Formats: sequence, C-alpha cells, structure tokens
Amino acid sequence: MPAGDDAAVLRVPDGRVVATTDLLVEDRHFRRDWSAAADVGVKAAAQNFADVVAMGARPLTLLVGLACPASLPSGWVLEMVGGMVDECVRAGASIAGGDITGADRIMLAITALGELDGGAPVTRAGARPGDIVAVAGELGRAAAGLGLLRAGRAAAGGELGELVRAHLRPRPPYPAGLAAAGRATAMIDVSDGLVQDLGHIAAASRVGIDVATAGLPCPEPVRTAAKLLGVAWPDWALAGGEDHALAGTVPAGSALPPGWRGIGAVRAGNGVRVDGEPWRGQAGWEHFR
Amino acid sequence: MPAGDDAAVLRVPDGRVVATTDLLVEDRHFRRDWSAAADVGVKAAAQNFADVVAMGARPLTLLVGLACPASLPSGWVLEMVGGMVDECVRAGASIAGGDITGADRIMLAITALGELDGGAPVTRAGARPGDIVAVAGELGRAAAGLGLLRAGRAAAGGELGELVRAHLRPRPPYPAGLAAAGRATAMIDVSDGLVQDLGHIAAASRVGIDVATAGLPCPEPVRTAAKLLGVAWPDWALAGGEDHALAGTVPAGSALPPGWRGIGAVRAGNGVRVDGEPWRGQAGWEHFR
Repeated sequence: MPAGDDAAVLRVPDGRVVATTDLLVEDRHFRRDWSAAADVGVKAAAQNFADVVAMGARPLTLLVGLACPASLPSGWVLEMVGGMVDECVRAGASIAGGDITGADRIMLAITALGELDGGAPVTRAGARPGDIVAVAGELGRAAAGLGLLRAGRAAAGGELGELVRAHLRPRPPYPAGLAAAGRATAMIDVSDGLVQDLGHIAAASRVGIDVATAGLPCPEPVRTAAKLLGVAWPDWALAGGEDHALAGTVPAGSALPPGWRGIGAVRAGNGVRVDGEPWRGQAGWEHFR
Repeated sequence: MPAGDDAAVLRVPDGRVVATTDLLVEDRHFRRDWSAAADVGVKAAAQNFADVVAMGARPLTLLVGLACPASLPSGWVLEMVGGMVDECVRAGASIAGGDITGADRIMLAITALGELDGGAPVTRAGARPGDIVAVAGELGRAAAGLGLLRAGRAAAGGELGELVRAHLRPRPPYPAGLAAAGRATAMIDVSDGLVQDLGHIAAASRVGIDVATAGLPCPEPVRTAAKLLGVAWPDWALAGGEDHALAGTVPAGSALPPGWRGIGAVRAGNGVRVDGEPWRGQAGWEHFR
C-alpha cells in the first residue's frame, strides 16, 4: 500500500514504536458544508498526532485509509491530503502510505506512529496524590466554534471566526506535549472533554482530581460567544473536546513545563470534582463520576 | 485508542517497523450473506499480514478501526474480532488497539505492523535478469470459490466447498514468506492477480518476467470447478488475487526456500509474458503490459 511497495519501512532507533488509530466519518465527525477539504485533512492528522504526543512521543508518520464515493471530486481528495501534509509539517511527521477504496460516504482511517527517543512513555496511570493538574493548549474554543456553527453564526468573522476555525482546524500543542515527556506523571489528549478525560487519568491512576474553574483560560472571544449564545463558558472548557488540548499531572514542587498552566491538584480518592463538587455540567454528561 | 491509553507502545528491537494499511467495505470487499463475521475478521487480518510478510517482515500487531451501524448485532462484532484473533495467532501477532464509530455500512480499517528482526526488507525492486520466479501458497482457489459463490453453487460442499472457504478465509503462506527473507531478491503479496502483481515487480525492478502456465499448481477441485463453470482454470490462477499467495524472485542456482515453487524466469526487458505471449486473460484486464 505505500508508494511502490507492500508496506513501508520506518526507522525507530530506540526500538519502540507508538501507534494509534482513529476513524472520521462524514456527517459524524465532519460536515463538508462546514469543513473545507483541507480542514478535514488537518483535523484527521491532528487528532491522531495529539494521541501520540499525549504518550510523550514524537510524531513520526501517518498511514491514511480513504473510503469515498466515486463522485467525490479528485480536487477534494488532493486538498484534504494537502491539509494532512500541512499538519504533518507542523508535527514534524511524514505520510508513509495508505489505501483508497470506494464507499457511499467519505471515511478516513488514520493510523499515526511515533517514537519515544529513548524516554519512558507517559501513560494515564502515573498520577499521584499531591501532583499538580495542568493543561496545555486551548480549552473551549473549539466547542464555542461548534456552538456558533450550530447556531448559524459561522460567518460571524473577526474574533468569533477564530473560534469557528478552532473547531475546524484544531491545533494540538505538540511542543508543550513533548516538553512534558520525562516530567509529567500522567498525560492525556483532551478529546472527550476536560472533565471526562481527567476522569480517565483518575481511574487509571486510582486517584481523585480537583479542578478549579478559576484556573481555566477563557479568552475574550469565548466570553463573547458564550454571551451571544447564552451558554455558561466553563461548560465549553470543561466538556469541549475538539481543541485537542493536553491534560496532565506533574509532581508538586516541580516547575510546569513550557506551555502548561496549573488548573488543580491530584488527591487520594476517586473521580473528578470541579470547584469542590462533582461536576454534572451539560445535559448528557451526567455519567461522569 | 488502545485499551486504556492514548496509544500503544510496541517493541521493535532492531529499530525498524514495517507498516501497511487496508480498508474493507461491506458489499465491496465482503458480503454478509456470503461471509460469516469470523471470516471477515480472518480476511481483514490476513490480507494485511500478507503485505507485511511480503516485505520479509514478521507480523507484530494490528490496529483495528471499525465503523458500523448501531443496529449491527454486537455478536457480529465479537465474532469478527474472534476471527481476527485467530488469524493473529496464525501469524504470531497481537491486536494493539483500535477505534469504533458509527456508519451506515460496515467498514474495517486495518493497520498491520511488523518487524524485520535485523534483516533487510524485501522490496519489489530487486529482481535481476536470470532470477527464478516463484510462488508460495495457493493460486486460483479463491477465484474459483468466488466463481462458485457468484454462480450460486456455494452450497456445493466437499471439494468445491473448500474453494468457497479459500475465498472467504484466505490463508497466506506466512512461514514460506519468512523463509524467503534474506533469499528472495523481490517479493510481493498476490492480491491483484498473479500477472498484475508480477507486473509490479517487473516495473519496480525494470525487468521483464516470463511465466509458464505448466508450472502453475492446479489442484483437482479447481479443475472440477472450472469444468462446472466453463472457465479456463489458468485465468483463475493468473488473474485471481484473493488467495493472498506470495510471488517473488530468487537468484538462479540457489535452492528455492521451503514452500516455494518455480513458475518462470526474469529476463531483460519489461512486462509479463505468459507462455511467451503478452497475457490478455479475462475481459477487463487488457491494461496489462
């Protein structure tokens, strides 16, 4: 399947490879009336590289499966791949190969590989009571952008347009993630929403986590969009997943790696508390502990 | 995406990883009225492992993306994964992780990783004039089985039933492929059909290839099915791809690795000749050189 042979051969000098895979289905994970083809390529690559970086690993390459209708213009495919290449450049990675086939609907299957450069993988299971809980990257901007798109305010432009772009083209904080390798005790890609993903760290590490909303970043446009749409902005920051921020824990007393900000602390116990209470947040999210 | 973390970490002690990806779409690559769920899992794994082995690499692991309708019975998914695990056992590999999402139709996106154990990868580009052309595994049995399925003879049973099973559950010759590593000058997974895939070796190696149909294996059931359906059996052996046999070239004068049989020779020039003539074979395949 890779250009010219049955499989690609990739070098991982430290003898370990980090691997993750994700599917994106048209009208479930993206809409062609909202996302340009290049946006879809960026997002597909970014969400997989974010998973690699959340392991403390450096993105190495992508394998790309594309299923699409025969009627899909080849220009769409080329632009999508162009967006994917842009994100590969941002992440310092390549495209190693792929497969293309027909289907009723566009579907992308992305596998990302990464390497640890001799370091230990950062799992979800290493958080210890007393650790600082920290985040890198944006929180809630993509959720605000999705809110604007759903409300038909996508053409708002200016500051609000930036939020829409944040939804369409997530920008995971790769350098911050790599800076946390060797320092974070646990790390995760925020893709289900901050509280839910911190819950994954809490469960895997058998600890509880406290988050203070006062510590969450809330850029001005998010505040403006929240007012416009009548939403409590912390809900976007706490439940929005599509910024592909990183969340992690570092030992108390150690400096945060560059690009990280503290938002809470790890405690003995279980579950995630927001401002001291179990967080129920938006309708549909009550299954959080 | 892997069980419990953002990505899987896999060991490849020699510092190289072999990677390939393939998509299988319902009603294009398999039909649920023909294939049991376990058959689909076997086939999805087998066709990817065959690509890994065709590089002279040992299968290491699978990453599995599954898109399916919410109405798909969970039993189907479990049986499919069961078939995949069976094939992993056959190939000596594991399942490292995956992703599942909703879609109108079942689609499987499989990435297989492998390792070279210190050896050189076997590409398509190393065939030299004078080399012996050889194959390992079955040729034409899966195509005969497909012919029987299409003709509504799937319930034939006995010998013919074996051909149907060969189509539904390909059995790539993994040990023969691994035995050829370090000995073959070029190797390929026969998935498009023998002549077409030898054409890929010829093009990549800038050589011509001569095949003699007298050297092709033709088991008795294939002969019986050909008679029954009024087909010339060599067409199945020359154009059928779904056995996932291996084809390769080895230097003249060297013994063939175990499990391989000679079917022709590499010459200067280009293209593939069958019994001395350019092969046009079945309708639709005239684009062969």
